[in-house]
Amino acid sequence: MDVAKLREDIQAGRFRDLGRAISLVESDDPSASQLLAHLYASTGEGRIIGITGSPGAGKSTLVSALARHYRKEGRKVGIICVDPTSPFSGGSILGDRIRMNELFLDRGVFIRSMATRGFMGGIARATNDVVDLLDAGGFDIILVETVGVGQDEVEIIRTVQTNIVVLVPGMGDDIQAIKAGIMEIGDVFVVNKADRPDADRTVTEIQMMMSLVDEHGDWIQPIVKTVAKSDVGIDELTAAIESHRSYLVASGELDCRSRERVRIRIETMLKEKFMDRLVGGTITLENFERLLDEVHAKTNNPHDAAEDLIERVKF
Amino acid sequence: MDVAKLREDIQAGRFRDLGRAISLVESDDPSASQLLAHLYASTGEGRIIGITGSPGAGKSTLVSALARHYRKEGRKVGIICVDPTSPFSGGSILGDRIRMNELFLDRGVFIRSMATRGFMGGIARATNDVVDLLDAGGFDIILVETVGVGQDEVEIIRTVQTNIVVLVPGMGDDIQAIKAGIMEIGDVFVVNKADRPDADRTVTEIQMMMSLVDEHGDWIQPIVKTVAKSDVGIDELTAAIESHRSYLVASGELDCRSRERVRIRIETMLKEKFMDRLVGGTITLENFERLLDEVHAKTNNPHDAAEDLIERVKF
Repeated sequence: MDVAKLREDIQAGRFRDLGRAISLVESDDPSASQLLAHLYASTGEGRIIGITGSPGAGKSTLVSALARHYRKEGRKVGIICVDPTSPFSGGSILGDRIRMNELFLDRGVFIRSMATRGFMGGIARATNDVVDLLDAGGFDIILVETVGVGQDEVEIIRTVQTNIVVLVPGMGDDIQAIKAGIMEIGDVFVVNKADRPDADRTVTEIQMMMSLVDEHGDWIQPIVKTVAKSDVGIDELTAAIESHRSYLVASGELDCRSRERVRIRIETMLKEKFMDRLVGGTITLENFERLLDEVHAKTNNPHDAAEDLIERVKF
Repeated sequence: MDVAKLREDIQAGRFRDLGRAISLVESDDPSASQLLAHLYASTGEGRIIGITGSPGAGKSTLVSALARHYRKEGRKVGIICVDPTSPFSGGSILGDRIRMNELFLDRGVFIRSMATRGFMGGIARATNDVVDLLDAGGFDIILVETVGVGQDEVEIIRTVQTNIVVLVPGMGDDIQAIKAGIMEIGDVFVVNKADRPDADRTVTEIQMMMSLVDEHGDWIQPIVKTVAKSDVGIDELTAAIESHRSYLVASGELDCRSRERVRIRIETMLKEKFMDRLVGGTITLENFERLLDEVHAKTNNPHDAAEDLIERVKF
């Protein structure tokens, strides 16, 4: 597959080859690695923005509103959805889906759901590969929607440039949950459905949490109130994203994050390849399963088993 | 360290050596692996129960109530807390802590927080190792409290025998979030703070979710209403845990889970050891960092970099 041709097609709104390439990536086809290796040099222009929040927080509506905003500026928008309950994934309420129809028909917007394909474990790897495809393909804005729960999603969040955490008023204990993981990963906070009466209290609660956690250096995370379904607050949100971008560039953190993204991706790939080759190379699948049986039967133990195996690998 | 001696001390309520052993495990001291390998054959009697829920759901209060219940039956209880906001971790409201004081003073109860030690990445490995220590040490019941968010916690949840998911009434969107990951991991659901008016609605919502997700074979997850702070519903909860235990044994799933636990632990250890040895063995740290620089500078790409590296390892 030719990168120049892929770009040209995408600019013209022809997504057939892109769709094919993504399918190769998802099925971990060997030709996918080749393609991705080849087009990697063409990546780096796209803005990778994460949108994280519980189902029901209105992430997809917010993503739609952002996509419409960026489309008005003439930018090409790619949407990758890693939430099986999202309207983008078909797990939809009809009204939501109708509101999104214009996006599905827009040739400047490409939407792909990663969550309903039934592959686990490799979803972080695959999502990052699809980000590369869209980036190399010339999408200016790449929106990655995640719930933020679980191993793969945390890994995905760690590889975006700007992460937006979406909350809704009246969360109660949910706000507490933020402390335990979500707070650290938000570059911008959105209180969506801000037409609800307790929106300001939620803003105050987030501010309180922010005063407890300090992980973002000089960047003070803005809190933006939105009503995504009627486009309220979207200009403020895109301004906040822009200002985070400026911060990232000026502070050199964009470079740090991008290098960290390289590290995470390489380590993930290495670990995947390692288990594949270990079982099949150093030890046959049968013998590996027998080893697990031994440990399970307590005639061996996990520590010695792992150590013995790793000792047989020549580094 | 002698396992027989460790057991004897623990039975007598002397936890000094246990505490030392855990510190070795946490610091990943080489002597810890030796100790764990040695005592592994003595594990397998303890009941490993996970308690998962957002901070604020009342997990710690529930854990306390369960611990008191099991203590009345004369059983030794180990509590491992992987939630930095939990009262057990010192992130506490004074009232909670006071309610737990009797547990801290009880020589049949051992409490350890894993979350505030500042080590990341290896926390799943370390938690499983501490479970082994407590198990081999003769604790009958091992309660593992987690928030259930993030890579390590998901891995911990996958290694317990019975996992209790704690919810509170009036969660709204929280219930939705369950769909996206929590629902699959609950063997027993608890609606805590069930003296709140909307407790029954929460029960109905969970039932609705359960009808959508089907992952647990023949086991129909019970939903138990509790008011943990006044011990309401605790007998029902322990009965539900017991009945899940009977199901696990009768269906053969206890054996499956225990073998799966072996697989997860060995793979985790292998991957940890792999990265350690790869960087330092196959490639020097300096050259690995240089490789990351190359990929970052786009003169190389993650796919070829990972493939080249793994090719140099002899399996």
